[in-house]
Amino acid sequence: MTRNDTKKAYEKLLSLTSEAYLLRSCMAILEWDEKTYLPKGGSEHRANQLALLAGMVHDKITSPEIGDLLKQLEGSPYLSEEDTFEAANVREIKHFYDKTTKIPKSLVEELARVTSMAHGVWVEARKKSDFSLFLPHLKKIIKLKHDQAEAVGYEKDPYDALLDDFEPGATIDGVSEVFTKFRQELVDLVAAIVDSGKCPDTSILRKDYPVDRQESFAKEAAKAIGYDFDKGRLDVTAHPFCTGIGPGDVRITARYNPKYFGDAFFGILHEAGHGIYEQGLDPKRYGTPGGDSVSLGIHESQSRMWENLVGRSKSFWKYFFPRAQKIYPEVLEKVKLDDFYLAINEVKPSFIRVEADEVTYNLHILLRFEIEQAFFKGDLKSEEIPGVWNEKFKSYFHITPPNDAQGCLQDVHWSAGYIGYFPTYSLGNLYASQFFNKAKEDLGDLDDQFAKGEFSNLKNWLQENIHMRGQRYRAEKLAEVVTGKPLSHRPLVDYLKTKYGELYGV
Amino acid sequence: MTRNDTKKAYEKLLSLTSEAYLLRSCMAILEWDEKTYLPKGGSEHRANQLALLAGMVHDKITSPEIGDLLKQLEGSPYLSEEDTFEAANVREIKHFYDKTTKIPKSLVEELARVTSMAHGVWVEARKKSDFSLFLPHLKKIIKLKHDQAEAVGYEKDPYDALLDDFEPGATIDGVSEVFTKFRQELVDLVAAIVDSGKCPDTSILRKDYPVDRQESFAKEAAKAIGYDFDKGRLDVTAHPFCTGIGPGDVRITARYNPKYFGDAFFGILHEAGHGIYEQGLDPKRYGTPGGDSVSLGIHESQSRMWENLVGRSKSFWKYFFPRAQKIYPEVLEKVKLDDFYLAINEVKPSFIRVEADEVTYNLHILLRFEIEQAFFKGDLKSEEIPGVWNEKFKSYFHITPPNDAQGCLQDVHWSAGYIGYFPTYSLGNLYASQFFNKAKEDLGDLDDQFAKGEFSNLKNWLQENIHMRGQRYRAEKLAEVVTGKPLSHRPLVDYLKTKYGELYGV
Repeated sequence: MTRNDTKKAYEKLLSLTSEAYLLRSCMAILEWDEKTYLPKGGSEHRANQLALLAGMVHDKITSPEIGDLLKQLEGSPYLSEEDTFEAANVREIKHFYDKTTKIPKSLVEELARVTSMAHGVWVEARKKSDFSLFLPHLKKIIKLKHDQAEAVGYEKDPYDALLDDFEPGATIDGVSEVFTKFRQELVDLVAAIVDSGKCPDTSILRKDYPVDRQESFAKEAAKAIGYDFDKGRLDVTAHPFCTGIGPGDVRITARYNPKYFGDAFFGILHEAGHGIYEQGLDPKRYGTPGGDSVSLGIHESQSRMWENLVGRSKSFWKYFFPRAQKIYPEVLEKVKLDDFYLAINEVKPSFIRVEADEVTYNLHILLRFEIEQAFFKGDLKSEEIPGVWNEKFKSYFHITPPNDAQGCLQDVHWSAGYIGYFPTYSLGNLYASQFFNKAKEDLGDLDDQFAKGEFSNLKNWLQENIHMRGQRYRAEKLAEVVTGKPLSHRPLVDYLKTKYGELYGV
Repeated sequence: MTRNDTKKAYEKLLSLTSEAYLLRSCMAILEWDEKTYLPKGGSEHRANQLALLAGMVHDKITSPEIGDLLKQLEGSPYLSEEDTFEAANVREIKHFYDKTTKIPKSLVEELARVTSMAHGVWVEARKKSDFSLFLPHLKKIIKLKHDQAEAVGYEKDPYDALLDDFEPGATIDGVSEVFTKFRQELVDLVAAIVDSGKCPDTSILRKDYPVDRQESFAKEAAKAIGYDFDKGRLDVTAHPFCTGIGPGDVRITARYNPKYFGDAFFGILHEAGHGIYEQGLDPKRYGTPGGDSVSLGIHESQSRMWENLVGRSKSFWKYFFPRAQKIYPEVLEKVKLDDFYLAINEVKPSFIRVEADEVTYNLHILLRFEIEQAFFKGDLKSEEIPGVWNEKFKSYFHITPPNDAQGCLQDVHWSAGYIGYFPTYSLGNLYASQFFNKAKEDLGDLDDQFAKGEFSNLKNWLQENIHMRGQRYRAEKLAEVVTGKPLSHRPLVDYLKTKYGELYGV
């Protein structure tokens, strides 16, 4: 092929891809609406609409024309010049095309059928706290996910094929290496904190926090850290999420507890973090991998950075606590900043992942990662999950779940076929700390800036170094390009030890 | 073709059509979102999404497969057994297919381009109250609408081809016949009311009506008349509308003026009337003409019936006025029902159509119908529109618009290429009265029921006689089937004369 032909093929490939992105973004609005404003009676029609669009998106993604164009581009400079946007676009389109076309339609349908049924059973099983109800469905799912891994293919471990759905390019070996080093230090830190006997007074967070004020205060904070409400909005949902519809339209959601400060405020910072990432993507590259987010892990690094590294920092609250006192004078007027700061950073082993603090959260993830690896590999029989869960839990957290509902049945993921998803949460925390260290190196005293309510330097740094790069690099490579180092557990462990060492005197 | 082949062809035709409906309903959600919650920055992306879907819907509607199936069905019993749902489905699908495929793509695109530009110019021209700015664009639009009429074809008058877009099957002759008789009686009634010298005190409607209470009161009323909030919702927009997304999802919108009672309340009753129609369609026939609304005129008959014939009746307010007094004690406690009833039924010639009362409203429409007929036929040069408008206005309303902004430039329709749309508003009023008379014949004393807050008999009657019939009959035929008589000006004129005769002693 001549250089000109190659260019034409590349442009055609991008134009087809971009139409699929655009159509997929129509689904995103329907999904957002389903979770925010859809009237009760509209569910069935919505399901029909989404099924139609999903089929059309699938047809676009897997069209033989894309296959032909990819063949034409094989061996061209577009593929060989590694890490250019052009090469990345072809690499990711090809990756996705290959994967999607390799999975037989019958398997896709069977997975949809089985997980749809499993979801209902899981809800019931959790309610009754009876893992045995869920067990046969989990077994079917594991079997089908094996079929999926075999269909897609993998280099070394079938689990890698699943991981790839959420963290493209990540492998069990790479993740395990970091997680293993991470685990022991975490377990020790948690033990030291528990042994310190220090117990923050968190009752100040559990008072009357009127919902309208929670909303306006959290919106002020989200705006301050850089979430742009002219290109987004905040609505109420049962399960908060962020959705990037397209350039200029990135929406976040929240739920409010009128008797608890923490949920909505940190939830909104978290979703705003995801939102800032989506809003920071290059709008000129919209519709191509170069204008898309890298992976769940990198996405989570952005949300967790704003929620925890920034939003739970002392300097953040130096600026925002006086404002909080004005907004909630009845409950906060007489509270001291230090006590508030300690309360929002309480570390306490507990059973439920989504309620966990910044330190123990990662142990919840490591435990799930170890268990799902084991049962997927066959080292652990599915029926042994509850026992092993509780055993591991005891050794990491020093407490034992009283039942399956508060143990191995608490999360929806496995019932949905999301095996390989959990690690991305901790990868997010790890990436966040590593990026944050580098940002501090580049930008000087961020704490000083935060204490003045200035967050734009960090936001701009993230946009330039991460968001605008889209999928030019995969996650691990991106970390190396941005920080000069491969992913390591060190920055996160050091951060946790320093922060919680001070707070708990350990 | 064997009977079996015909059946197969019919079923395939319906399945293709229903996919187009389903895809069109995805656009409806995007359009609803655009007008309610879309962030400012998302407009361009939304336009791209809608353009993509519009193209896909167009492809589905005009697919050669539909053409082939329609040909196969020609002369089959499905077409010859007039007025069965099957015949109606084929009739309407064929009608729409023929029309859509006859208009060249270049004309569709040119119309989109010209009207898009004309809209901006119209906004500017209205602001400056200068018709001459808009004139060249209107000329282009008239020319293109002639091209459209020629492409689509017509039996007698090219205007019929345009009318057909909004009121399928209606003709200028049929409409003119009813409107001409209607006009003189209306002009006389308005003159008599003006001469009566009676002037209601409408200041009671222009006080503090807090928006949250307006919303809850109007919702209560909308619910009472039969709009189902489990299958719908009410949101805020600049220009209120109703949109039927699909079975179980029919949404209405409103705008509120905190200093005026009328706008939101009657606007919401109006949209709820449209909504009750959409919610009353047969869900089993969704995706086919048999499960769709008949025409703009019939749609408007439903909204106007609930807004005016019911919502501005004395009996309605016998029930709701005491509730209004409780909700707005500050402004209504000492007001008498009769005075309130007179205030909401004030008849007063005024320049702006959308602010007009129940009596003069129709004159606004007749005037526009006469003018657009004339300029489309060429009997009236476009540059003469302002002069003729003001002249006619003077003779119907006894007042003369002070400028074009309050005269011939007030409405958006012509700038959008909507020639043939205006008559449907008055057709709606005419159909409403005729249906309402029949309902009263069938159901006994409706006033007595309304005064007790009971509206379900009327709602059920409408659903059975009109909504559930979908497009089985076209508008004129539907009126005959339901009321036993062809459309006539008599019921509306009699209603107006009786009601306003009493109110104004004329």
